[in-house]
Amino acid sequence: MIIAVDAAGGDHYPKNPVLGALAAIKEFERLTILLVGPKKLVQNELSKHSFDQDRIQVVDSPEIVEMTDSASAALKQKPNSSIAKGISMHKQGQCHGFVSAGNTGALLAASMFILGKLEGISRPTIATYYPSLEGFRLIIDAGANLEIKPDMALQFALMGQVYAKEIMGIEQPRVGLLNVGEEEGKGTELLKEIYGALKQIPSFIGNVEGRDILIPKADIFITDGYIGNVVLKLGESLPGILKILVGQQLQQSTGTPEMMSFVQQILTESLAPFDYERVGGLPFLGVNGTSVVGHGGSSPTAIKNMIKVAMDCVEHSINDKIIASIN
Amino acid sequence: MIIAVDAAGGDHYPKNPVLGALAAIKEFERLTILLVGPKKLVQNELSKHSFDQDRIQVVDSPEIVEMTDSASAALKQKPNSSIAKGISMHKQGQCHGFVSAGNTGALLAASMFILGKLEGISRPTIATYYPSLEGFRLIIDAGANLEIKPDMALQFALMGQVYAKEIMGIEQPRVGLLNVGEEEGKGTELLKEIYGALKQIPSFIGNVEGRDILIPKADIFITDGYIGNVVLKLGESLPGILKILVGQQLQQSTGTPEMMSFVQQILTESLAPFDYERVGGLPFLGVNGTSVVGHGGSSPTAIKNMIKVAMDCVEHSINDKIIASIN
Repeated sequence: MIIAVDAAGGDHYPKNPVLGALAAIKEFERLTILLVGPKKLVQNELSKHSFDQDRIQVVDSPEIVEMTDSASAALKQKPNSSIAKGISMHKQGQCHGFVSAGNTGALLAASMFILGKLEGISRPTIATYYPSLEGFRLIIDAGANLEIKPDMALQFALMGQVYAKEIMGIEQPRVGLLNVGEEEGKGTELLKEIYGALKQIPSFIGNVEGRDILIPKADIFITDGYIGNVVLKLGESLPGILKILVGQQLQQSTGTPEMMSFVQQILTESLAPFDYERVGGLPFLGVNGTSVVGHGGSSPTAIKNMIKVAMDCVEHSINDKIIASIN
Repeated sequence: MIIAVDAAGGDHYPKNPVLGALAAIKEFERLTILLVGPKKLVQNELSKHSFDQDRIQVVDSPEIVEMTDSASAALKQKPNSSIAKGISMHKQGQCHGFVSAGNTGALLAASMFILGKLEGISRPTIATYYPSLEGFRLIIDAGANLEIKPDMALQFALMGQVYAKEIMGIEQPRVGLLNVGEEEGKGTELLKEIYGALKQIPSFIGNVEGRDILIPKADIFITDGYIGNVVLKLGESLPGILKILVGQQLQQSTGTPEMMSFVQQILTESLAPFDYERVGGLPFLGVNGTSVVGHGGSSPTAIKNMIKVAMDCVEHSINDKIIASIN
């Protein structure tokens, strides 16, 4: 399998994409990585390591899509960026998928424009993993579609079910509609219509609320991208905030150094479910290809895990299964 | 000052409203409480305690608005409920305010219908306190208006500023628009229009994101009631979830009993900012009166604090100041 990796994306390029790629070829057999980025920059980073030269190739793409660039940057102003290059190579069949910790909007735009949509899909979506007492679950949409409609929501749920079943190993993923109350008939007219559309899904459990996310009462929480994005970023901020709050209490406490380090250790372990690094990223669901996006601050481990996600999507023929479930 | 308390609202009536009222007259001078609820039920609870009989009166209201009743229940089906009775007495000048841990929708509907809106206000709103590293801040709207418009958002922000300044003691409350990115021009067309409306406020700091809430980057986070409600309930669920996660780690750990109880103590102290009991509840902003709503699970302390909120609103002439800031 050949996976292209954005070596000019995220907050820590080329270092983290290079380290992630090196870790990936060490861990996964029959994998070749194409590192897409400014050639000298990437080669310079690679030269610090020894590795099987046959399994990592550098593909030159001199232009850089900044994290603050507009979504159309990779397509219009910077046609020689790593995103445009990597997605185009994927379109041409030169690799099985592309992973990037770079500009999400630009990657989504390039993926939709160059790869196109899957047959029957009205709008591709970004899902996000969200921590819970039972491990990660999905919130869809996480920011690609700030306004959603009933038919879109139904497709998001069906695509999410394929992903949850195939990649996350959840046998019959429960779908819940994030709403302001549990009873049917709660929410806006639009939410009531979305509820009606989701009823077609056998494992639709109805409305769920904010308090149900971390339980988790559903495996797939359907909402609009405005809410999904706010909730996603709130969740990402939580471990850091809790560490500060606990740190403040420890400073005022009279515990011994041993007790304090025990608290820190327990806290770190307890917050592990909130560690997005373990999953790396998610593919855009509904695009005609495998395009995985991760957090800008992705570590080498996160990028390695994103590569794994792309490999899993290809091996499980996610897109064929999505088409089958939709049509 | 006379405050009416819903003695038939919340998950633990009449006990908690009665205990909250008793605590309030003990703590606050020159306060008389009207306990509104089924007379025998309330008197039976009161008879378990000794107190200054002149400062607590029972007002009979035989009908009960259940937490699951529709918003119109208190007005149409149950005209002799504590909510209808208490709000009507407030309208007639028999008390300075009404506080309830009961059905929020019913209380809002009764408040809007019986008390009416403040001059110049297009839609009253529910704000919620949200924890942060610097104490509680406000999210508006928290569920009263699932869809908002630019003029509503502007009024919410102005009302929130009056409340934050007068009651929370924040000198120049910063207003932020909860959005999916920081840059101006982010979000839906509606969000861009709301951004434009909020620009009239000198201390508007622009768009803020989910990750900015707990910092807090703003003092008042403006959003629609769908998001506000989801984020509110997610936040409320958090301490319980964290206690479970930490408990699981402690069970697997090899710490001594002393170390484990130290962890529990530090955790409890660290999560204190998430304890909504300390603030009790908030008034509906924009109604022509003082109608304070709290969590269904409110403890006696929470209800005592809600009574304090109502007293503060009256003493600070919140409604006069809101009218002045809007018009």
